Amino acid sequence: MDWPKGIGGLCYGGDYNPEQWPEEVWEEDVALMRRAGVNLVSVGVFSWARLEPSPGSHDFAWLDRVLDLLHGAGVRVNLATPTASPPPWFGLAHPDALTVTADGTRLTHGSRDTYCVSAPAYREASVRIAGELARRYRGHPALAMWHVHNEYGTGCHCDHAAAAFRTWLRDRYGTLDALNDAWTGSFWSQHHSAWEQVMPPRATRYLPNPAQTLDFRRFLSDEMLTHFREQKAVLREHTPDVPVTTNFVFGDWVPVDHRRWAAETDLVAVDHYPTADPPQETAFAADLARGWAGGRPWLLMEQAVVTYTGHRMIAKRPGEITRLSLSHVARGSRGVMFFQWRASRGGAELWHAGMVPHAGEDSRIFREITELGALLPSLEEACRAPVEAEAAVLWDAEAGWALQAPGLPSAGLDHTEEVRRAHRVLYRGGVTADVVHPSAGLSAYRLVLVPALYLISDDDAANLRRHVEGGGTLVVTYLSGVADPCARVRTGGYPGALRDLLGVRVEEFHPLPPGAALALTGPGGEDLGTGTFWSEHVHLEGAEALARYGASVPAPGIGPHDAGWGAGAALHGLPAITRHRYGAGTALYVSTRLPDADLSRLLGLEPSPLELVRRGEWVFAVNHGDDEQQVPDGPLLPPGGYAVRRARQG
Amino acid sequence: MDWPKGIGGLCYGGDYNPEQWPEEVWEEDVALMRRAGVNLVSVGVFSWARLEPSPGSHDFAWLDRVLDLLHGAGVRVNLATPTASPPPWFGLAHPDALTVTADGTRLTHGSRDTYCVSAPAYREASVRIAGELARRYRGHPALAMWHVHNEYGTGCHCDHAAAAFRTWLRDRYGTLDALNDAWTGSFWSQHHSAWEQVMPPRATRYLPNPAQTLDFRRFLSDEMLTHFREQKAVLREHTPDVPVTTNFVFGDWVPVDHRRWAAETDLVAVDHYPTADPPQETAFAADLARGWAGGRPWLLMEQAVVTYTGHRMIAKRPGEITRLSLSHVARGSRGVMFFQWRASRGGAELWHAGMVPHAGEDSRIFREITELGALLPSLEEACRAPVEAEAAVLWDAEAGWALQAPGLPSAGLDHTEEVRRAHRVLYRGGVTADVVHPSAGLSAYRLVLVPALYLISDDDAANLRRHVEGGGTLVVTYLSGVADPCARVRTGGYPGALRDLLGVRVEEFHPLPPGAALALTGPGGEDLGTGTFWSEHVHLEGAEALARYGASVPAPGIGPHDAGWGAGAALHGLPAITRHRYGAGTALYVSTRLPDADLSRLLGLEPSPLELVRRGEWVFAVNHGDDEQQVPDGPLLPPGGYAVRRARQG
Amino acid sequence: MDWPKGIGGLCYGGDYNPEQWPEEVWEEDVALMRRAGVNLVSVGVFSWARLEPSPGSHDFAWLDRVLDLLHGAGVRVNLATPTASPPPWFGLAHPDALTVTADGTRLTHGSRDTYCVSAPAYREASVRIAGELARRYRGHPALAMWHVHNEYGTGCHCDHAAAAFRTWLRDRYGTLDALNDAWTGSFWSQHHSAWEQVMPPRATRYLPNPAQTLDFRRFLSDEMLTHFREQKAVLREHTPDVPVTTNFVFGDWVPVDHRRWAAETDLVAVDHYPTADPPQETAFAADLARGWAGGRPWLLMEQAVVTYTGHRMIAKRPGEITRLSLSHVARGSRGVMFFQWRASRGGAELWHAGMVPHAGEDSRIFREITELGALLPSLEEACRAPVEAEAAVLWDAEAGWALQAPGLPSAGLDHTEEVRRAHRVLYRGGVTADVVHPSAGLSAYRLVLVPALYLISDDDAANLRRHVEGGGTLVVTYLSGVADPCARVRTGGYPGALRDLLGVRVEEFHPLPPGAALALTGPGGEDLGTGTFWSEHVHLEGAEALARYGASVPAPGIGPHDAGWGAGAALHGLPAITRHRYGAGTALYVSTRLPDADLSRLLGLEPSPLELVRRGEWVFAVNHGDDEQQVPDGPLLPPGGYAVRRARQG
Repeated sequence: MDWPKGIGGLCYGGDYNPEQWPEEVWEEDVALMRRAGVNLVSVGVFSWARLEPSPGSHDFAWLDRVLDLLHGAGVRVNLATPTASPPPWFGLAHPDALTVTADGTRLTHGSRDTYCVSAPAYREASVRIAGELARRYRGHPALAMWHVHNEYGTGCHCDHAAAAFRTWLRDRYGTLDALNDAWTGSFWSQHHSAWEQVMPPRATRYLPNPAQTLDFRRFLSDEMLTHFREQKAVLREHTPDVPVTTNFVFGDWVPVDHRRWAAETDLVAVDHYPTADPPQETAFAADLARGWAGGRPWLLMEQAVVTYTGHRMIAKRPGEITRLSLSHVARGSRGVMFFQWRASRGGAELWHAGMVPHAGEDSRIFREITELGALLPSLEEACRAPVEAEAAVLWDAEAGWALQAPGLPSAGLDHTEEVRRAHRVLYRGGVTADVVHPSAGLSAYRLVLVPALYLISDDDAANLRRHVEGGGTLVVTYLSGVADPCARVRTGGYPGALRDLLGVRVEEFHPLPPGAALALTGPGGEDLGTGTFWSEHVHLEGAEALARYGASVPAPGIGPHDAGWGAGAALHGLPAITRHRYGAGTALYVSTRLPDADLSRLLGLEPSPLELVRRGEWVFAVNHGDDEQQVPDGPLLPPGGYAVRRARQG
Repeated sequence: MDWPKGIGGLCYGGDYNPEQWPEEVWEEDVALMRRAGVNLVSVGVFSWARLEPSPGSHDFAWLDRVLDLLHGAGVRVNLATPTASPPPWFGLAHPDALTVTADGTRLTHGSRDTYCVSAPAYREASVRIAGELARRYRGHPALAMWHVHNEYGTGCHCDHAAAAFRTWLRDRYGTLDALNDAWTGSFWSQHHSAWEQVMPPRATRYLPNPAQTLDFRRFLSDEMLTHFREQKAVLREHTPDVPVTTNFVFGDWVPVDHRRWAAETDLVAVDHYPTADPPQETAFAADLARGWAGGRPWLLMEQAVVTYTGHRMIAKRPGEITRLSLSHVARGSRGVMFFQWRASRGGAELWHAGMVPHAGEDSRIFREITELGALLPSLEEACRAPVEAEAAVLWDAEAGWALQAPGLPSAGLDHTEEVRRAHRVLYRGGVTADVVHPSAGLSAYRLVLVPALYLISDDDAANLRRHVEGGGTLVVTYLSGVADPCARVRTGGYPGALRDLLGVRVEEFHPLPPGAALALTGPGGEDLGTGTFWSEHVHLEGAEALARYGASVPAPGIGPHDAGWGAGAALHGLPAITRHRYGAGTALYVSTRLPDADLSRLLGLEPSPLELVRRGEWVFAVNHGDDEQQVPDGPLLPPGGYAVRRARQG
Repeated sequence: MDWPKGIGGLCYGGDYNPEQWPEEVWEEDVALMRRAGVNLVSVGVFSWARLEPSPGSHDFAWLDRVLDLLHGAGVRVNLATPTASPPPWFGLAHPDALTVTADGTRLTHGSRDTYCVSAPAYREASVRIAGELARRYRGHPALAMWHVHNEYGTGCHCDHAAAAFRTWLRDRYGTLDALNDAWTGSFWSQHHSAWEQVMPPRATRYLPNPAQTLDFRRFLSDEMLTHFREQKAVLREHTPDVPVTTNFVFGDWVPVDHRRWAAETDLVAVDHYPTADPPQETAFAADLARGWAGGRPWLLMEQAVVTYTGHRMIAKRPGEITRLSLSHVARGSRGVMFFQWRASRGGAELWHAGMVPHAGEDSRIFREITELGALLPSLEEACRAPVEAEAAVLWDAEAGWALQAPGLPSAGLDHTEEVRRAHRVLYRGGVTADVVHPSAGLSAYRLVLVPALYLISDDDAANLRRHVEGGGTLVVTYLSGVADPCARVRTGGYPGALRDLLGVRVEEFHPLPPGAALALTGPGGEDLGTGTFWSEHVHLEGAEALARYGASVPAPGIGPHDAGWGAGAALHGLPAITRHRYGAGTALYVSTRLPDADLSRLLGLEPSPLELVRRGEWVFAVNHGDDEQQVPDGPLLPPGGYAVRRARQG
């Protein structure tokens, strides 16, 4: 496994913000880091105002002392450029570089990330401060890695953004005619006759143009990537051997295509904050990060010692910090990093927990942190082997964004959520899966799941065909293959680009009202569970029916006349799940949403709370359940127990 | 029945947007139209950017070809002026003509309807493009009708709108003193001392002025009507014999008084998209359209082949497209039109279904469209007779708008919803009702329902009195008669303008908390159901009590101390439903909201899923239920069946 | 008891807005006031536009007539300055003086309170109109009191406000260094290097700075107080003997620290509109007002004859107007005032009920008003004695504001709500409590409750320590003592400033998910109820455990794996409620939220619907329940009954 030079073994540490504390605390910090086994910290993420208190006047002395102190203690530094939060003076000097929302509100400093990534003043200032840092700390022995910016994901709708968006569109489409075609300018009189008419999706009267909205997300991703590249270039110039990364943050609101970005970083680094079901979400996030990294090692750059549910900070169970960290490492992370080292006492995130809590070292959290620090070095050998995945789940940021358009056939459509659902069924069934893009090489997988892949290019559809032709198994779920890369419907029958591969023609989509469900029955009339949320009018064109739609399932709040509405009456007896022999392989189509248990049964899986990941001759095993679990050919794990051991001869 | 010249029999077709498709598709379109029996299509609704790609430069050649092609196939054209969506160049040339929201945000093109209907530049451009179309296509043999604009309903709060609002108010009130009186300027120091102080209801600190808000809606309706009239004038000038219409869209958010507009159109045309209960909503929409049209024929200009619930596109049951279309025709529509002919593949409404779905002609939807097209010509004779209605439900846009004010005695007050409720009880009880304005002639009706008519003029109140004096029966429900046309309370006791007619004096309104209900008992103590949502402290002043308030009905979440709160204790034993002999007639007052079953019983009705509409010697019968239904003196209809037949000798 | 000169005995009346009615109604008003026993009315609250119809031109003649008429009828006048609603002409003359929201929207007149209290033009106009009134009516025999403005509570984010905020911050902190320290400028690069960079909390990208937000609320309170003081000064100049007040309105959105303001008024006056549970809310509001007034008399300046639940106007039960008014008087109000005398017929509050309803004098409401007016004079002797309170509940506006910050450990945190909860348990248990600030003298109380006092100063913490040292009992609940006055966490273990007093160290907070609960068990394993919403990891450092955390309580929607989440597993067997002997007293700590019944039991109380308030030898007793209640040593009260009588010899 390749790994950026100069970082060493498994990393352990977190964000370290000494500027928030008096210097006497720094000494204690370093002593506690030693005790906890910390070997890497991210420094300076939001330090711009401290590094450049007024325009052009710099103060690095404090940071010199911090780096020297850390170096003295054997802790290496992941040094950040502070561009995610310009100081207050910046906005006053460059009001045109502050964020403008879709409705034209110009934001004010007072939080973080209040800038326009297209504003020349911001771009210049970013490169300048990155250059100052690189010049000062090139050669510092503590410097292990560059952490550019923080959690890219911030859009703007100002005139700078509009101009840059136009440039990006010219590059993409060449001519206005091509743009008008891609955006279906013939609809609602949206034909553009000059480039200056083209705008970001600003506040407008009614439904926006879905292709424009999608392209604006693509543009924002590329525009931020340019900002990253500019910083990377100046860092590379001064420190050609120091790896450069940035910490990816993942969410529906984030207009960043991390898969494309991954190739531009020396190390894929991700932040991960699970909400409802930490073990399953952790496995998904880790498998996704590994997918972005193309199977190479990656790094968990931020997690928290507690769980944030969005509305509440929830304690982790005893040992859970270690169990979730182990899951990340098992799935390819070259270490375990937290936000943050020491919990802040002021500022907007004063209740963001830390490795050293407000209460100090005499605490359960710090004791668990110390135990985890002692465990990690023992895992390094196991981490040299690649993660073994027998299945893949396909995920594409653009398909997910396209399904965020208004005016779709149903509320609640969510590509990423369907991908999570599919991954969850595999995870609980003990199958390690890669989460990869539809363009990825698929030959290594015995099973490939394609959940609600609304938008797909012709090339990617061909990739799927090749996989099945070559003998692979593909399971495609509802609403896949429908749109082209401009988010236009492929006409002539759904699932569009995948019709021939799946051997079906879908005449119409029939979303189901909330709570409604249709029974599914097998060829012999046997009960195969239910379809929920969505149904389709499927014609067989080469495929065979594995399950057919049956009666509407009674549900509270849905009367006999409403249940399934028209769908129940229209689809009774028609195919719901189909199988198509194609080349040497098999392609299944699931035209509805199966509850987890039904999808699990379709895939022949048996759920278990025992997490197993195989890497060469090593097995990582974690028992997330409340009962003992037997590791195959291995020990009996108590509730909450784990083991990393050689399972078979290499 | 009169009917605009030159349109012919029952219309069948939909919106046709050939500009969204390559010309080779046009040929297929026309062939499919022939197959489906289409005889009228609406063309050019959003074609401005295609017709005038840049300011002053026009391109009609494509439209010439479209009209020629349609003419060749025997399809006539309802030609639209494209003013509902100015092209992108328009906003750049005239930024002052873009919409401004109440909080001052100036909207950007990128959707539709982004203009200020008071802006001179927009008004001039609208007349100009309408004139260009009229000049070009006068005399074209395909031209059957003009479709001005689309779904008027768009307000603006900019300075153009403010100036026009002031002019409108001067016309209405004459003097500032009269305006201050009408708006109760003495409240909260809102006295205006100069006209330039008068503003649209822009964002303000706290509750807005309800009279100002109501007048602004009235102004918007009139202002848009002027825009319509200006286009109509230029069309009339060039094509004096071609009827002119616009498609009404109905909703709480639409500041258009369609009843007033109806007189200005040559044909009332309506769009109708039911949501929760399509059969009942269809009957209501059709009866309302017939009311707007003053009993004359009208035209269903848009409906969809599926049902939009707001959050989901729901399939219609097999045959339901035909059943709902039949209901419209039975209730006076001179045809059946859809949005749209062919489902779009891009743009904001790419998931708006079409007569030709994405899947193409080989589909259940297109087959049902073809069957409906074959059926319609057979109905023309039945449609010559007038619809017979024995009851009327009174509805007034202004009363509904007045009940959208903040600060009313209860959340959930909704005049239109109460009218729907009353209409629904009649509809399910087999009674065909007209939905008419309180000023309408009422002598033809044996029963007139007046649901929650909050605002009423003295003249309209006198109209109701005359109806009862003359022997009619009136059923008035809670909160009626209370406000004058300036939305000021008529003091001295509710129901204000209707006190003498109803023979009651209401001392106080007692809204009920959600879930609370009060038992209703008859003179002999018999159970007469419950009153919900609202109750009143009623004194008899000439009327007799048909039902009195009894005990609070226990409900989940409402403790014994809360149930009905003060209302239960204060109203026990007082009148709830009253009857007053007035002249030769009878006026009932229902001071609470009756559940459907209780209102049905009060009116002596029996619910049935069989829809029956009589027109002269013809009867239209549609079975919306899941069981067979016997048509009186007619056939036994299977579930989903229908019949149109002579029922009695004329 | 001291009492402003010239007001006399118990006041009775309400807001009187004769400018909304023709003069013939004024005669009827005065006759009805006599009949009802009204002796004081608030006049002119929103009369600016009537008093100064255009800039600089005044019309006082109508007000002269009103005051003369009232004087003739023996009704005294609480004369208002009308500054809460500048006339429309004001905003046109001074657009810079209109409110600007956090996102930069400049509001328009059309409601009330649309001004910036920092705008020079508004400040000057306010003093001018107040001076005009004072000059004209000094010496008028009806003038009893000045009512400055109305319900202060209106913020602004404009440049005037920004400049004033900076001045206030300079006064508070002196230097930028001190400001940066107080605001934790080291977090997210928020260090300010020049004063002009300091802004109100305007719309920004993400979470705002909690210290900035808190200081902005403090600033708004002080800024409005300056506006009040300026008016008071000019009124004092002309009428040195007339008391000056303003009506406090209380709510989470109101940035006014009424306790600080109280000292600046000659009489604390409050508006009170209960919502869900009028008796309990009334007792709380009255005890809070008495706390603001430092135990001196105060005045209920506004209440309504009905209950507003936010969404509905709900009738009061027969007699409830009197019962709630009695509760206010029993708890120290020197009278009973309503909003408003006569219900308006127009304007935004046309459905705000009045002492004279829309229906007029022949109404239950007016009859009850007349009965109450007849009762009040008989209570004057009882009102001379001070209210006796044996307990205190501590409440601090600043602590409440600090808990409105985003990013706290849990949604639903609410200091005021916890104070209400504690007060409610005492109220239902028959204990009269003062609601006072943590700095108040506490020696008179046998019991002091400290609910969720998140923010506390060192001085106030010392005050609590002194109280316990001196023999008092203190009950502190969760999340208290945590933050310093800059809303920064006190590190080293919670509850921060109260650790030594409580003899505990809390290592971590463990908020519970909605619906989750942990069993509480006593030293012998006995059931002590449950802890909900919140739990903590408590270590004993001198205290003893009264209750310990037990098993998670099963709850709907929370599976066995989720119940209590990590908290249940982490806290099992650890202390939940502790007791610490400190000096001569005792300090309890409750580290979770106890349901009312469990808190009641902990305090040894027994709930009852009988409200009892003792004042010297007098007892006020009100039966709010549905059953008879026995007054100790007194009469048997029927449901809804009340008595005010001598209970013991003085």
